[in-house]
Amino acid sequence: MALLVETTTSGREYKVKDMSQADFGRLEIELAEVEMPGLMSCRTEFGPSQPFKGARITGSLHMTIQTAVLIETLTALGAEVRWCSCNIFSTQDHAAAAIARDSAAVFAWKGETLQEYWWCSERALDWGPTGGPDLIVDDGGDVTLLIHEGVKAEELYEKNGQLPDPSSTDNAEFQIILTIIRDGLKTDPKRYHKMKDRIVGVSEETTTGVKRLYQMQANGTLLFPAINVNDSVTKSKFDNLYGCRHSLPDGLMRATDVMIAGKIAVVCGYGDVGKGCAAALKQGGARVIVTEIDPICALQALMEGLQVLTLEDAISEADIFVTTTGNKDIIMVSDMKKMKNNAIVCNIGHFDNEIDMHGLETYPGVKRITIKPQTDRWVFPETNSGIIVLAEGRLMNLGCATGHPSFVMSCSFTNQVIAQIELWKEKTSGKYEKKVYVLPKHLDEKVAALHLGQLGARLTKLSKDQADYISVPVEGPYKPAHYRY
Amino acid sequence: MALLVETTTSGREYKVKDMSQADFGRLEIELAEVEMPGLMSCRTEFGPSQPFKGARITGSLHMTIQTAVLIETLTALGAEVRWCSCNIFSTQDHAAAAIARDSAAVFAWKGETLQEYWWCSERALDWGPTGGPDLIVDDGGDVTLLIHEGVKAEELYEKNGQLPDPSSTDNAEFQIILTIIRDGLKTDPKRYHKMKDRIVGVSEETTTGVKRLYQMQANGTLLFPAINVNDSVTKSKFDNLYGCRHSLPDGLMRATDVMIAGKIAVVCGYGDVGKGCAAALKQGGARVIVTEIDPICALQALMEGLQVLTLEDAISEADIFVTTTGNKDIIMVSDMKKMKNNAIVCNIGHFDNEIDMHGLETYPGVKRITIKPQTDRWVFPETNSGIIVLAEGRLMNLGCATGHPSFVMSCSFTNQVIAQIELWKEKTSGKYEKKVYVLPKHLDEKVAALHLGQLGARLTKLSKDQADYISVPVEGPYKPAHYRY
Amino acid sequence: MALLVETTTSGREYKVKDMSQADFGRLEIELAEVEMPGLMSCRTEFGPSQPFKGARITGSLHMTIQTAVLIETLTALGAEVRWCSCNIFSTQDHAAAAIARDSAAVFAWKGETLQEYWWCSERALDWGPTGGPDLIVDDGGDVTLLIHEGVKAEELYEKNGQLPDPSSTDNAEFQIILTIIRDGLKTDPKRYHKMKDRIVGVSEETTTGVKRLYQMQANGTLLFPAINVNDSVTKSKFDNLYGCRHSLPDGLMRATDVMIAGKIAVVCGYGDVGKGCAAALKQGGARVIVTEIDPICALQALMEGLQVLTLEDAISEADIFVTTTGNKDIIMVSDMKKMKNNAIVCNIGHFDNEIDMHGLETYPGVKRITIKPQTDRWVFPETNSGIIVLAEGRLMNLGCATGHPSFVMSCSFTNQVIAQIELWKEKTSGKYEKKVYVLPKHLDEKVAALHLGQLGARLTKLSKDQADYISVPVEGPYKPAHYRY
Amino acid sequence: MALLVETTTSGREYKVKDMSQADFGRLEIELAEVEMPGLMSCRTEFGPSQPFKGARITGSLHMTIQTAVLIETLTALGAEVRWCSCNIFSTQDHAAAAIARDSAAVFAWKGETLQEYWWCSERALDWGPTGGPDLIVDDGGDVTLLIHEGVKAEELYEKNGQLPDPSSTDNAEFQIILTIIRDGLKTDPKRYHKMKDRIVGVSEETTTGVKRLYQMQANGTLLFPAINVNDSVTKSKFDNLYGCRHSLPDGLMRATDVMIAGKIAVVCGYGDVGKGCAAALKQGGARVIVTEIDPICALQALMEGLQVLTLEDAISEADIFVTTTGNKDIIMVSDMKKMKNNAIVCNIGHFDNEIDMHGLETYPGVKRITIKPQTDRWVFPETNSGIIVLAEGRLMNLGCATGHPSFVMSCSFTNQVIAQIELWKEKTSGKYEKKVYVLPKHLDEKVAALHLGQLGARLTKLSKDQADYISVPVEGPYKPAHYRY
Repeated sequence: MALLVETTTSGREYKVKDMSQADFGRLEIELAEVEMPGLMSCRTEFGPSQPFKGARITGSLHMTIQTAVLIETLTALGAEVRWCSCNIFSTQDHAAAAIARDSAAVFAWKGETLQEYWWCSERALDWGPTGGPDLIVDDGGDVTLLIHEGVKAEELYEKNGQLPDPSSTDNAEFQIILTIIRDGLKTDPKRYHKMKDRIVGVSEETTTGVKRLYQMQANGTLLFPAINVNDSVTKSKFDNLYGCRHSLPDGLMRATDVMIAGKIAVVCGYGDVGKGCAAALKQGGARVIVTEIDPICALQALMEGLQVLTLEDAISEADIFVTTTGNKDIIMVSDMKKMKNNAIVCNIGHFDNEIDMHGLETYPGVKRITIKPQTDRWVFPETNSGIIVLAEGRLMNLGCATGHPSFVMSCSFTNQVIAQIELWKEKTSGKYEKKVYVLPKHLDEKVAALHLGQLGARLTKLSKDQADYISVPVEGPYKPAHYRY
Repeated sequence: MALLVETTTSGREYKVKDMSQADFGRLEIELAEVEMPGLMSCRTEFGPSQPFKGARITGSLHMTIQTAVLIETLTALGAEVRWCSCNIFSTQDHAAAAIARDSAAVFAWKGETLQEYWWCSERALDWGPTGGPDLIVDDGGDVTLLIHEGVKAEELYEKNGQLPDPSSTDNAEFQIILTIIRDGLKTDPKRYHKMKDRIVGVSEETTTGVKRLYQMQANGTLLFPAINVNDSVTKSKFDNLYGCRHSLPDGLMRATDVMIAGKIAVVCGYGDVGKGCAAALKQGGARVIVTEIDPICALQALMEGLQVLTLEDAISEADIFVTTTGNKDIIMVSDMKKMKNNAIVCNIGHFDNEIDMHGLETYPGVKRITIKPQTDRWVFPETNSGIIVLAEGRLMNLGCATGHPSFVMSCSFTNQVIAQIELWKEKTSGKYEKKVYVLPKHLDEKVAALHLGQLGARLTKLSKDQADYISVPVEGPYKPAHYRY
Repeated sequence: MALLVETTTSGREYKVKDMSQADFGRLEIELAEVEMPGLMSCRTEFGPSQPFKGARITGSLHMTIQTAVLIETLTALGAEVRWCSCNIFSTQDHAAAAIARDSAAVFAWKGETLQEYWWCSERALDWGPTGGPDLIVDDGGDVTLLIHEGVKAEELYEKNGQLPDPSSTDNAEFQIILTIIRDGLKTDPKRYHKMKDRIVGVSEETTTGVKRLYQMQANGTLLFPAINVNDSVTKSKFDNLYGCRHSLPDGLMRATDVMIAGKIAVVCGYGDVGKGCAAALKQGGARVIVTEIDPICALQALMEGLQVLTLEDAISEADIFVTTTGNKDIIMVSDMKKMKNNAIVCNIGHFDNEIDMHGLETYPGVKRITIKPQTDRWVFPETNSGIIVLAEGRLMNLGCATGHPSFVMSCSFTNQVIAQIELWKEKTSGKYEKKVYVLPKHLDEKVAALHLGQLGARLTKLSKDQADYISVPVEGPYKPAHYRY
Repeated sequence: MALLVETTTSGREYKVKDMSQADFGRLEIELAEVEMPGLMSCRTEFGPSQPFKGARITGSLHMTIQTAVLIETLTALGAEVRWCSCNIFSTQDHAAAAIARDSAAVFAWKGETLQEYWWCSERALDWGPTGGPDLIVDDGGDVTLLIHEGVKAEELYEKNGQLPDPSSTDNAEFQIILTIIRDGLKTDPKRYHKMKDRIVGVSEETTTGVKRLYQMQANGTLLFPAINVNDSVTKSKFDNLYGCRHSLPDGLMRATDVMIAGKIAVVCGYGDVGKGCAAALKQGGARVIVTEIDPICALQALMEGLQVLTLEDAISEADIFVTTTGNKDIIMVSDMKKMKNNAIVCNIGHFDNEIDMHGLETYPGVKRITIKPQTDRWVFPETNSGIIVLAEGRLMNLGCATGHPSFVMSCSFTNQVIAQIELWKEKTSGKYEKKVYVLPKHLDEKVAALHLGQLGARLTKLSKDQADYISVPVEGPYKPAHYRY
């Protein structure tokens, strides 16, 4: 695929796999709208006042049907939008086509190379000679990283003419980033400075990206305000837990058609994502073994009747392995060699270093047999026995299925919309410094409230007397900040 | 697609969608073999003695990857095989291609018209001038029905020259059957008689087909022995229950990506299939309402915390409707009109009269919007509100996903293989009359035993003393015939 | 407690623990009536016609609150009743007191010795000089056994004057039975013959008793017709499954207060009782290991995510052991020695030979520490480590708690009432020979139907057209005899 | 029961129901020790250094078997202890007897009047003329309240000789408190001042007590440092959730023997306690309806397949009602009148105003029928229909059963011990001001870690490289403070 930006008849830029899928994408977007009451309520509530009038938003977030509803909520509220995906396998091409045709500049397709991936990210940030975006919607923090690395490089370059050196790192992906920045420096040595000066803020979606933001805040290197959407209760306790409970088995089934009942499954990590995965596997009839470093999470697993062991203990008897840790080096190639023939290995986390894909790919004599896209059987030469790796060790639920379903993404994305409105409304007030913020609890509760009606729920109302008795306002928020739900 | 039989280089007949998918099919067949220990054990145990030597087997059973492993087990045991699918949507084209290329004569593709469907069935029965098959593997009983109707028509024709009259029935499918038989009569007025004379027996897979067999037995019209495989415990309590528990959500997710958690789901019927469906939906976080006619099954639903109501009670509040009854006229078009916008309606049973598809298709002014194959939105003109119907009202788990997973099908299909061996072995002994039989319990237990090792299970052995105490043989069978499991 | 029959002011015989508990018993009986709609419906439907007019019924069945409602249903329908318990620990003394005072002759108390137990059984059969009962309600078959052994002894005595010799058996309980019969022979050498001549039939409640009946039928020694109530669907699939799911954890909690979550539990046997026990433990957060001899039941356990191992595999790591097999020698004293300190060992089945209580009691140097009645810690001398045995190895749910709850017992007992009515109605018709019968399916369905309204269920009605399509009557029965539910 | 302090032969004061139960209590304490690895580890780790040497601890916390193990852990670490219960129904008399005889001064029995309750509280604080305790272990905050009210009254009395006036309040319980303080003022007008001067701090166990502490902190009236043990993860997410999941059904079964399967249950409130209760009822086969004021918790309930309605919506169809809110006026007498006959109404929360007991008791013509202690049927005169109220509307799991099981209480109480050690160690360092503190996360993780071994769990160890990658220490703590688990 040649990396040339194309243009719609209306003059909007894009690069997608197949524009002819736009109609199909539109049909699915219309179905999804019915399942995303939070976003549709935002359109009703905020649409008339056009809060994003004049705002340019760059998004780096899986270009799926659900994201399409998010994008069209942003444009319905007045924003101009450019978008790329935040994972090489997660784009749904029909969604990308529909948005590219109808609503926003999209640069995304399923199965990008890493090179293509960063080219897309650059395009999403490229608002032309007048600078970058006003706001960023991020998932995993890659666009935010690019800007921060760009600014750092420009400073060094200005100081002593030093250019970034891609050969200074072993990390293949970081080499690409440095190359992009190096090449950009030659044409515009102030590109990323202009960008960061314009940016009002970023709202970040996921654990991994949030972790990076807090590190930058701690180091004093954060360049603009950030809202941590991940830690809204209606995000981390919903999308991570209930989303994965839905999409893990979906990915397993679509990729392998394997029967879950009767199997032994190892879930590495028992945070919210791991809890969702373990619940799904247990309910499907698997016997679930959890690995954990944190004694509290381990004790939670035990209380649900799950066994807690080390990976080593279970390596040769388990049928399915899922990593959910957000850490690296969880399942190494030396582990994979000990597994049963056709054991399934997958990662529902963001990065492909959770499973040692590098070790696997470079294992001497290993043979890769692609059953179908995102489902590979890897055969070890010594044993002629193989394992099945999903989505090349990345986000299996988006690579092998369609990710989280619309309803739960409506919770996450309503947080995004509210965060973006907040950042843009306060762009000149000074309310937000170059720090990481979470949304106040009453907004979190509002996000939840927008999703109740569709499920037929009826809330109880607190009387004034009762509210006083437990010392909360009648209208909420109802819980202290540290409440764990 | 022109209905012309094609021929492999080795001279075997076939008609499939796309022979280039044979390699992909082969890869998935190899994966499935690992998940089907019962069938693979049959190859090991019986392969050397070639029990099917000289036997011609015609199969009419969903042409999936799992069925491919069944077919190649039959051929590994010495049989010659011709095959068609028993549902217009259930063929997996890569499985059909691999088998057509490598092992047996296949006539099947996903998305047949009814006309094409019956053409395929005829081809599977067409063993050339020397008559029909020796054995039949049936699922739903369509091939058995065709032979019985053929024989009936030939008798009438011989008696008084009367030809079947397709216009004598309203049922579109039965019109096709009568047309086929009528046209056949002209070329060979003894075709079906020759066939039934040769046939040693049929083994039937599913509730619907078994019901027909018992009716024929009761009427005295059954033309050859039949083994009811459906009522083996390792079939009805496994495939129906655990298979559907797996494949119902799989079909829902692939077709609609809808979030199951939080939804209200109505399951019509709480037999084994309904129990599996209800369990899956409950575990996925739905609130499940069951409809039932049988007070015992209704009370079982209540004991699991499910609500038991009539369809009418729940019609306007539910999000998902699944029929599992094996009966007809369960959800009528008048019901569908009362449903919420985008309510999902599907049938996991065999025939498309469980949901009133005819009423829907002929509803004045109704609009059908195909989101993607097997996922249609039907919009009523009065309300401009629509419902989503899966797989045109037929077997949604095979139409929208890949049906039951390999492991549980290994149980069902091992019963089939054992039944076929039994029929063929006793072909001249007179052991089986023109009646319906079930497999003896020790064979049922054997099927189960073949599937334990792979799941790491270790059985306890009865001592002689204990066996005497409970009056069973040490080697089993362990339960009385009426035991319900 | 001296074994003297007492007499109420109205002249009815009884022997209970404490008559002053009658008021408390009455209050609980009144609560239970609301939870037993099947029995109360029988009173409404049959009460006016007094079907049991003139009938003497002897019952041997746990003398609990629920049984009290059964007894008073029998008397409300016209019967005269004498009752004993069928287990030395299962009587609820307040229930016994209330019935003794108000309704029937009761001989039962919690904590009988074996000697007392058989004295009570004799009293329940003792209808005075005019012979025995007309009908028997049995659970476990002890009363039926006594009559059969009695008749056998009388025949031998008549033939050659031979008296039963208690020293001919090692079994302590059987010694008592022989003693009773021997002593009786001296006063009335035709006592049991007169009894069996009068008896119209027995209805038997439980697996163990039913097994004995089928053996007698097979041997040709059955002396009167028997209805197997245990194998009504509304008995075996309800009381055994849902009853145990409720009463196993109840017994565990009352006896030991132990936390179930996080524990490793071994369930020996995965029939209906085992399925109920395993479900309860799994839901309570335990990790459940099943032992099985039957490969089909073992595969069912695996499909629910349970591990299937031998007792030996799990003996040293498990915390809780439950036997549900109905067999003997399941957990031997040599197994108990290998268990963790304070492992809990219990049997939910009828007889105390499922756990090797004899081996434990006679283990050299073993020390028994009674924590409270029915909860004993047994300490082995070698390790000074102990296990906790509940209810002396007998029915732990009745010994340590109150057995199955009223609602599910209403299903079982409604079957009993219907069976008794049937036997009495056909007493002279010859319909029932000296064989074992099950109730016809329409009565089974009726029992279920009587329990739906209270749970708010609404059944769907079959149309005539639908009923014809599936070949069943509109009013049921809806399933073939072999249907497994 | 005359309120006279008794004295053991060793001279220790006490007042319990029945000292002869001490042996039984000791046996159960020994069983519980095996189930409380956290407390036993504290004895091993800290016992030798006697950290509480010289410390006087007053505890006000349900005097159960589990608390007995806590008390003897405190004494094993060197403390001198006086104890009362914090609920009139929660004492287990055999536990109280064993501790009184062997270890500490206990003033507690099951079924205290309110007058007796506060007399016991006074005794627990009464360390003789040399002043009060050094440390307080509190649950619900009653002892802390008494001291604070006492100090307030003494100040007023000193200022203007004003005595507390019991008639100034409608609240019956507060009248008793004021009476106690008034009477005390006459004998020692500095009693509570001396007490608060001596007190180093309090550790508080429960939500209700913690709420009071934060209010006092906010008002600036808190008299000594407080550690909020309730909000340790290993307390609130374990004891509240898993404890109630165990003890709610235990209480229901012991009090009513009611079958949970098939019932409709309403759980008011879906916090940690409500989540545990709803899970238990759902697993038991009930259909659960949740009432909630908080949209986030409501959405969580929906995601688990529970229905969310108002109490009014469900009032006439439900069979079981449980309040878990910690608020007041949840179920009013006007609601109770609308319930089905024999609906069960109970509160698992601390105070009896969650259910309108006052309204019920004073309802004109209402009739109370005590089935057995803590199980009352209340009959309304208009309908002659009744409801069943457990434990007089207070903590039903402690009133009707034995509360949370040992294992989960070991988590809570290990937090208590660690908090007490911390307060006493820092008594002079000034580390703790007159504020409310939570335990640092590494201690929370330590509590969990102490409970893993017994359940056979094996933790995974983080490598240094991995720890750096996610920016945590290798030894933990592993999560940010706001992590929700």
